[in-house]
Amino acid sequence: MIQQLTIIGVGLIGGSLARALKQAGYCQAVVGCGRTEAELKRAVELGVVDRYSTDIAEAVQGSDVVLLAVPLGAMESCFRAMQGHLNADAVITDAGSSKASVVAAAEAVFVEGLPAGFVPGHPIAGNEQSGVEASFAELYQGRRVILTPLESSSSAAVETVRAMWQQAGATVDEMAVDHHDEVLAATSHLPHMLAYGLVDTLVSMDESEEIFRLAAGGFRDFTRIASSDPVVWRDICLANRTALLAIMERYQADLEKLTQLVRDADGDALGEIFQRAKSARDRFVDQLEN
Amino acid sequence: MIQQLTIIGVGLIGGSLARALKQAGYCQAVVGCGRTEAELKRAVELGVVDRYSTDIAEAVQGSDVVLLAVPLGAMESCFRAMQGHLNADAVITDAGSSKASVVAAAEAVFVEGLPAGFVPGHPIAGNEQSGVEASFAELYQGRRVILTPLESSSSAAVETVRAMWQQAGATVDEMAVDHHDEVLAATSHLPHMLAYGLVDTLVSMDESEEIFRLAAGGFRDFTRIASSDPVVWRDICLANRTALLAIMERYQADLEKLTQLVRDADGDALGEIFQRAKSARDRFVDQLEN
Repeated sequence: MIQQLTIIGVGLIGGSLARALKQAGYCQAVVGCGRTEAELKRAVELGVVDRYSTDIAEAVQGSDVVLLAVPLGAMESCFRAMQGHLNADAVITDAGSSKASVVAAAEAVFVEGLPAGFVPGHPIAGNEQSGVEASFAELYQGRRVILTPLESSSSAAVETVRAMWQQAGATVDEMAVDHHDEVLAATSHLPHMLAYGLVDTLVSMDESEEIFRLAAGGFRDFTRIASSDPVVWRDICLANRTALLAIMERYQADLEKLTQLVRDADGDALGEIFQRAKSARDRFVDQLEN
Repeated sequence: MIQQLTIIGVGLIGGSLARALKQAGYCQAVVGCGRTEAELKRAVELGVVDRYSTDIAEAVQGSDVVLLAVPLGAMESCFRAMQGHLNADAVITDAGSSKASVVAAAEAVFVEGLPAGFVPGHPIAGNEQSGVEASFAELYQGRRVILTPLESSSSAAVETVRAMWQQAGATVDEMAVDHHDEVLAATSHLPHMLAYGLVDTLVSMDESEEIFRLAAGGFRDFTRIASSDPVVWRDICLANRTALLAIMERYQADLEKLTQLVRDADGDALGEIFQRAKSARDRFVDQLEN
């Protein structure tokens, strides 16, 4: 059980974890930390955190677990602000969508060696909303959390982080940092680029008003992720640039092949691709549901 | 009110219209027509149609309205099969996702001039499922149907088709054939290509098993349309090839710009695009909901 948990960035991700752990009775006290006092006050009103500070050094004091749930570009300054104020055995984890960049941010701050309590992590959960108002205790139920323990990570710290996410309802996997970043580039970062790109293409068209008026349910589903927080996604692009670029280039090449088949009116080849994609997608949904 | 409606292709689209009109008490009798007798028998069992024939000439006899709800590649042979067997004042419409190709198919058959009763149409509704089992009476509630009346279309026929869709719960718009095909290429056909393309890219990766296992809810929404009927979508690619190619090429150019911004690590420009897309997408959803 966690005595005191500090959550830096009390939004959808951090707020939902706090709610889940409180509901599970797994956490004595939650301290919220962020830049906007009004948001933190709201988090107290909603019962998501017990108290707050806008000062990271103060917020982490006495905590056995610290979660960073801030945009990737803010990780380094957060590490810097907590340095020297952490409990000796504090466990530090994060919820960033790319892991190599978080490790690099930690290394830039903890130059004498990473703390044994540091275990990078990534809950594969969330929706297009943001802010503490959108947080809810069930967000992690049945979802996956990937931990990418480092050589410096103590096994006790890994177990603490694993148990915390399990208490929130998630299944916990472990993988290597680079592997995580490649897989996430494909499953999450690329789709976001495609959805942002599609909306942007349509917005710039002469008939954009009409296009959005006539777009139906499929379009709504397809572009839901284009309503995600622009700052978070800007940071993901920069932080996971190498893996994202590789998969974007691969996708572009595949899309060009598809375009060429349309150009050639090659119905057989198009039908085969669509059939293969449908089969794979249907299998994926079956797995999710069973 | 319709005395006898023939539906050629009793699947999700055709079956749902039959159900809706029966529920509204707007149609005395529905005759189903298709190639697979077992499917037609099932449609009778489900109460979707009153009787059926696998022979188009027989199925259209005596009907005041005929709806073609078949893949675009099957339109011409359907027109050919009904020629000479239609009531003199029969109204003929279709549910095809591209309109120029349906008009061309009709022109190839009715070489002496298109029937005054022919009014091309397109219900902007459906989901990734297919078949009569998936049909339901509410599919068209609050959805849009676009009619693209031709110079040859009588105003009485246009009114009949309009009233039919309104009885099924839809709002009916009219637009020119080419304009329809351009707008639909952007709002529907392009997103399907992107989703099919994404699933196909991921399937071909070494880590595809793991990728699909770790893909979360956003991916599921994003790729729902990749579970659509491959034959229907092959035909759409061929039928709306010109408009689809134009928008695919435009999208590719925009995606290349986005890729270049990632390559350049241009966070400001990326953030601006994401913000603009989010705003447009949020406005779109607000409009849908209000």
